Amino acid sequence: MADNDPQTPDNDEHSAEAVAVGSVDVEARIEDIITEAIDAGDTERVRDIVRELHYADVADLLERLSREYRARAVEIIRDIFDPEVLSELDETVREDVVNALGVKEVASALSELDSDDAVFVLEEMDAAQQQLYLEHVNEEDRSLIEQGLSYPEDSAGRLMQREVVTVPSQWNVGQCIDYIRRRADSGDDELPSVFYDIFAVDGEDHPVGAVSLSRLLSTRRQVPVAEVMEEDMHVINVATDQEDVAFLFRQRDLVSAPVVDDSGKLVGAITVDDVVDVIHEEHEEDIMRMGGVIEDDLYRAAVSTARARFSWLVVNLLTAILASVVIGLFDATIQQTVALAVLMPIVASMGGNAGTQTLTVTVRALATKELTGANAYRVITKEVIVGIFNGVLFAVLSGLVAWGWFGSPVLGGVIAAAMVINMVIAGLAGASIPIILERAGADPAIASSVFLTTVTDVVGFFAFLGLAALVLI
Amino acid sequence: MADNDPQTPDNDEHSAEAVAVGSVDVEARIEDIITEAIDAGDTERVRDIVRELHYADVADLLERLSREYRARAVEIIRDIFDPEVLSELDETVREDVVNALGVKEVASALSELDSDDAVFVLEEMDAAQQQLYLEHVNEEDRSLIEQGLSYPEDSAGRLMQREVVTVPSQWNVGQCIDYIRRRADSGDDELPSVFYDIFAVDGEDHPVGAVSLSRLLSTRRQVPVAEVMEEDMHVINVATDQEDVAFLFRQRDLVSAPVVDDSGKLVGAITVDDVVDVIHEEHEEDIMRMGGVIEDDLYRAAVSTARARFSWLVVNLLTAILASVVIGLFDATIQQTVALAVLMPIVASMGGNAGTQTLTVTVRALATKELTGANAYRVITKEVIVGIFNGVLFAVLSGLVAWGWFGSPVLGGVIAAAMVINMVIAGLAGASIPIILERAGADPAIASSVFLTTVTDVVGFFAFLGLAALVLI
Repeated sequence: MADNDPQTPDNDEHSAEAVAVGSVDVEARIEDIITEAIDAGDTERVRDIVRELHYADVADLLERLSREYRARAVEIIRDIFDPEVLSELDETVREDVVNALGVKEVASALSELDSDDAVFVLEEMDAAQQQLYLEHVNEEDRSLIEQGLSYPEDSAGRLMQREVVTVPSQWNVGQCIDYIRRRADSGDDELPSVFYDIFAVDGEDHPVGAVSLSRLLSTRRQVPVAEVMEEDMHVINVATDQEDVAFLFRQRDLVSAPVVDDSGKLVGAITVDDVVDVIHEEHEEDIMRMGGVIEDDLYRAAVSTARARFSWLVVNLLTAILASVVIGLFDATIQQTVALAVLMPIVASMGGNAGTQTLTVTVRALATKELTGANAYRVITKEVIVGIFNGVLFAVLSGLVAWGWFGSPVLGGVIAAAMVINMVIAGLAGASIPIILERAGADPAIASSVFLTTVTDVVGFFAFLGLAALVLI
Repeated sequence: MADNDPQTPDNDEHSAEAVAVGSVDVEARIEDIITEAIDAGDTERVRDIVRELHYADVADLLERLSREYRARAVEIIRDIFDPEVLSELDETVREDVVNALGVKEVASALSELDSDDAVFVLEEMDAAQQQLYLEHVNEEDRSLIEQGLSYPEDSAGRLMQREVVTVPSQWNVGQCIDYIRRRADSGDDELPSVFYDIFAVDGEDHPVGAVSLSRLLSTRRQVPVAEVMEEDMHVINVATDQEDVAFLFRQRDLVSAPVVDDSGKLVGAITVDDVVDVIHEEHEEDIMRMGGVIEDDLYRAAVSTARARFSWLVVNLLTAILASVVIGLFDATIQQTVALAVLMPIVASMGGNAGTQTLTVTVRALATKELTGANAYRVITKEVIVGIFNGVLFAVLSGLVAWGWFGSPVLGGVIAAAMVINMVIAGLAGASIPIILERAGADPAIASSVFLTTVTDVVGFFAFLGLAALVLI
């Protein structure tokens, strides 16, 4: 289908049912249409619609259907099922779809996919299940896939395409172009379907330079490759973590990069489309972790979701109990002045919020490598100053509120002093906890907020009630 | 410098000072070396090091230096300053650098940059400042830049390169290749330095198809463009929001896409490197907002940072006061049973944490368009079930703690009942608040958490203290 409507990137002129990327309403409509067609037993309509869709949209559609309709839809489109759909599906949904498709269909899909996509589909399964499907894949594809699976999870080796165009560095531009055209003419399977750079290698298969296709096309045929190739390219080791790969691509505006094994031999290439997925994935992970969710669970069943979130809540229960113990130390004071119980959450909550602001900036700066050993001290100092500044402002505000509410200037003074203390500590803790965790090799995104809340709750309650106990009794 | 060490993507073999992407230690070293050289007055050393660096690394270096050293470093490298550095800098730092460079140097940098990068550098300045620099830019470049600035902020028009290779759709592959080479030979300024697709247009400059360079190279010269071009391409309107552009690129694995004006004429192209930056930027924004930070302020001065974070904290103060008012309703009950004051933060805090988990998943699903009108009801129902499930578990746990601690089974029962109520409400609120905000046209990332905390605090305190007042008195 042509998709050339200039008004939006998504409206499709000649098909009312075409999925619209980015338009919630039309997207919502298509699953209703499919659900209705399944209910009405109109399988031809389902097949017609799916045939018209891009594989990414088929994946979206399957994700949005409920589990029963998903299984029924897969049953209906089984023989027109595009293997690419599998690599676009959310993990939980993919499990459903793979089970619905059955061993033979999945195996044939794996053969059809590029090796990196096949690895992507298989990597979340356990070894027994992987074997089940791989048994039915032809030997050549199987060995490529198994090699991909042998690299560490989240490594460059898993991300890379094995298919890559290499040329001897002594060739000229014309030879390269003829070589590519000859391989394409002969229907060479090993020629990648889309590529952006060709790589010049020496006699030992070590990459020595990269030539972008636009450079290749803009250069006369007789010019030697060595003259136009980019020597200052970024060679990635198969074991490099995908997060570092993504950082490199973003930092250097790369579209593809050669991957080498430990002996420096070229074994594949990573292209930007895979990196975009990695960036997106890492992004999801960061946000989820900061929100106390270990794994995106939108498509998981309720009970399994509850179980996955349970452990985080247990940690938080312990934190909350610790804060309660601190309050318990001052129960006599509270009994005497019940206004303390009324006001104490304000101090803890403001510390928590101010600390979270600091924490967010610090965790992000660590993730983007903007925060290093060299400026850590400066960042912490700054956050303490910010804490003093806002601490004083909110001390005045909350002091006035307490004074006005309970008619006690002393109570106002106590909450003001506690507020300054807690907000300064919040700045200090919000900046230093992630830095310490990072140095200790822990992921600052996931553990920082629990530590921070513990600090701001304990300090908040202790400062406020402790000062009150000193002053009011 | 060649960067071909297979061990990591970053180690550079022949220059000890070379910056290392992704390696905190070596990165930390370079700014120390620069700082020392500046202190020692060794400007040649500074210049030698900067000359060796990639522009993205120069930008990183300038970001990490303190303000005084930054200004002094710019002074030293002024005449070897690479314009590309400007487009890589964080906004706050860019302001410093632009001021240190002076009008003439900035104007000449703007002329050298691609139009999209020049627009990127200028767009955060006010109109008067933009004019100041543009006055010194030659007319041709200025009109391109001004045209870019005339498109709405964060639109495709701002992102696109105006330089794009178009061919008549009736040409064949050979004509296209010759045309590109001819333009390159003549030193054509309008030929983009790197490109991935060429676009076939009809007689009215409407794009009718795209041909990837790898396709062009793999096809015989006499084949007509119309036969190899991808008609199912995604045409983007100049006014499209950059977030939708990023979504489209990610969803469709694009590397470039044509941009058209309202009449459907091709006016430019967006390439994936700019989209990667957008994805990163939107990511930053999402995380910052969920953490209560309006704008990344790592490089801002302390006072300006404190001021920017102040308004968020004021909103939270109001929320905290509201929660205190609820506690105040039950002061008599608390005076009688001071254990209530000790335990009450547990209920509120667990509700807040469970709600944040739900909120995080929901806000993300809305941002990635996985959550639509069609499955909103299903998601909310599921989150309520998760709330019931974990609510019951934590009711038992906290009930036992309260019973054991204060020896009162009734108190245990009260906290258990309040816990179930608050965690169910947390699930309901965590899922529905972002959906309601999105429908109302507000950004769910920024406002949701305040509403959520208000709900879980108020419900938590009210349920716990209210039940206690009923049962214990």
